[in-house]
Amino acid sequence: MTDEALVLGLDVGGTSTRVLAVTPRGVRRGAGRASGGNPTGLGPERAAVALAEAVEQALTGLNPADVRHVVLGLAGGGVLPSGADLPGGEAFARVWDSVGVTCPVDYEPDALIAFVAGTDAPEGSLVLSGTGAVAIAVKDRAMAERSDGHGWLLGDRGSGFWLGRRMVLAAMAALDGDGPETALTGLVIESLRLRDPGPGNDSAATTPTTPPPPPPTARDLVAAVMAEPPTALARLAPLLSTACADGDPVAEAIADRAAEHLAATLSTVRGPDTATPIVLAGSVLTNPTPVAERVRRILRERWPDAEVVPALDGAAAAAWLALARIGPVPTPEIRERLFSIPTAS
Amino acid sequence: MTDEALVLGLDVGGTSTRVLAVTPRGVRRGAGRASGGNPTGLGPERAAVALAEAVEQALTGLNPADVRHVVLGLAGGGVLPSGADLPGGEAFARVWDSVGVTCPVDYEPDALIAFVAGTDAPEGSLVLSGTGAVAIAVKDRAMAERSDGHGWLLGDRGSGFWLGRRMVLAAMAALDGDGPETALTGLVIESLRLRDPGPGNDSAATTPTTPPPPPPTARDLVAAVMAEPPTALARLAPLLSTACADGDPVAEAIADRAAEHLAATLSTVRGPDTATPIVLAGSVLTNPTPVAERVRRILRERWPDAEVVPALDGAAAAAWLALARIGPVPTPEIRERLFSIPTAS
Repeated sequence: MTDEALVLGLDVGGTSTRVLAVTPRGVRRGAGRASGGNPTGLGPERAAVALAEAVEQALTGLNPADVRHVVLGLAGGGVLPSGADLPGGEAFARVWDSVGVTCPVDYEPDALIAFVAGTDAPEGSLVLSGTGAVAIAVKDRAMAERSDGHGWLLGDRGSGFWLGRRMVLAAMAALDGDGPETALTGLVIESLRLRDPGPGNDSAATTPTTPPPPPPTARDLVAAVMAEPPTALARLAPLLSTACADGDPVAEAIADRAAEHLAATLSTVRGPDTATPIVLAGSVLTNPTPVAERVRRILRERWPDAEVVPALDGAAAAAWLALARIGPVPTPEIRERLFSIPTAS
Repeated sequence: MTDEALVLGLDVGGTSTRVLAVTPRGVRRGAGRASGGNPTGLGPERAAVALAEAVEQALTGLNPADVRHVVLGLAGGGVLPSGADLPGGEAFARVWDSVGVTCPVDYEPDALIAFVAGTDAPEGSLVLSGTGAVAIAVKDRAMAERSDGHGWLLGDRGSGFWLGRRMVLAAMAALDGDGPETALTGLVIESLRLRDPGPGNDSAATTPTTPPPPPPTARDLVAAVMAEPPTALARLAPLLSTACADGDPVAEAIADRAAEHLAATLSTVRGPDTATPIVLAGSVLTNPTPVAERVRRILRERWPDAEVVPALDGAAAAAWLALARIGPVPTPEIRERLFSIPTAS
């Protein structure tokens, strides 16, 4: 056990809770991982159990009294205002007591952490498309403005959910004869497990006398989608890449529209002549998807002087922000060290 | 107790279960009413309890063995195909056993019953806009084709849910400065109880030193909407009439678009030169709303020779259909007698 100063960086999402314990020089002393820890989605008690597990793991062999600052980024499309009190935060406060961490804890929107995960600049903007979609403007490493992030029912335009829903609607229209044929129909049907993906293991069991099952209808698609929570539609988003790679015009039109929505969301919080960095976050924008390609193209046209960078590891970014809040802004060397190994997701 | 023949007509919805017991001459012998009885929304067991209660009420003082036929219309935007087995129907079958009704029971989509509630013609079409939206073509008093009815997440275009969501989006855009000012903003805010409806009882309690609460933001609207099930948005639909009465252009544009959607849904199942009747059903179309007015105008242009009639009492229509299925088509006199008193909703 050492007695050097430490900070903790946490990336708390709906499916995983990740923690890094690092020194002021950016050296990792501990890492922890547990299941989802978002109190809004899971309830404060269940979230607190995950938090405690991940933090205890990260602090194994370390002295909790050495922790000088904690930054915790919380998923939810940037719903939490910068520096706000956490809803249901009493359960989290009890966790810090129980593990012996007595320093200040900053709860921050995941969109701000994603910005820091892309750049060490104090000012700039972020556009995120994962399950949801949001854009923020950042000033002095705090969230200054926000656009969209309004959730799947009333917003999140251009998000993974939005893409999945549009793809199902395109498949339904094709099946009903209301819209053009599209490669998305077969992809969506397979993905919703409404039929076997082509000739597979089961084909041997099909005797010649077994009539093939009737092809799925639009109504079958509706039933399959409605059997799950709406946000499960985001799982279909990667199919868009497959259809666009084949030059499917329906898929390309959906990708175009998503990119326009995301660029419009960003434009709401970013002036036309701004040269500060733009961070791209969320799986739709950090992977080489048709939507990411189109968004990058629009950004180059609209903000030719801006650096466009992807968001990297959120837990490392939270740790970086914790260091910046208790001392000088970490040097590029420290930043590189922090981000050199991705935190296990 | 008499021993004349009887039929039962049932209108089973999400919020009420209504039953009529009538003679072949259309004379009411009994009526029953209970809470919602839709097995899909409420579960088969709870639905069966409501069904038993309403049927027992309707059969008070009557001999269940005299019931020759039952037609039961089931809410759900026409999801149930004409004559199909009811999902979870075993619980309903036990109800019929327990009350001593041994005759055949036809489970029918509510859209077909609504058609029969508008006309005694064997053929025609129906367009419905309530919480959901659907159109059907009817042949030989059975559902022949259906369009939309795909539920709030993937369809129901022009429905009460659709209107409510569009009105909230218009209010959010106005609050964010992304869209034009509209009377809908204040109406939606009041309806979501985000502020007092003007100076009211509470104003006396407000001392001059109390600062007024900050005006609601788009984000407050999102939070209020997300705190309820999505279909609760349909409750906002009547506000559109208020805003359209004031000539609000944003509200009028929403009404225009809803009417276009509903006309398109109907056109999918109805040929251009058809002269059979068109039945309007659901609260958005049977009340004098801006959407109903626009839909009627489009129907007059597109099908000038068609009679356009509103759907009346569903329980009476189900009883009428039950009579038509075991004997000659009831005379206009019998029909008038059946529909003369609305079944208590």
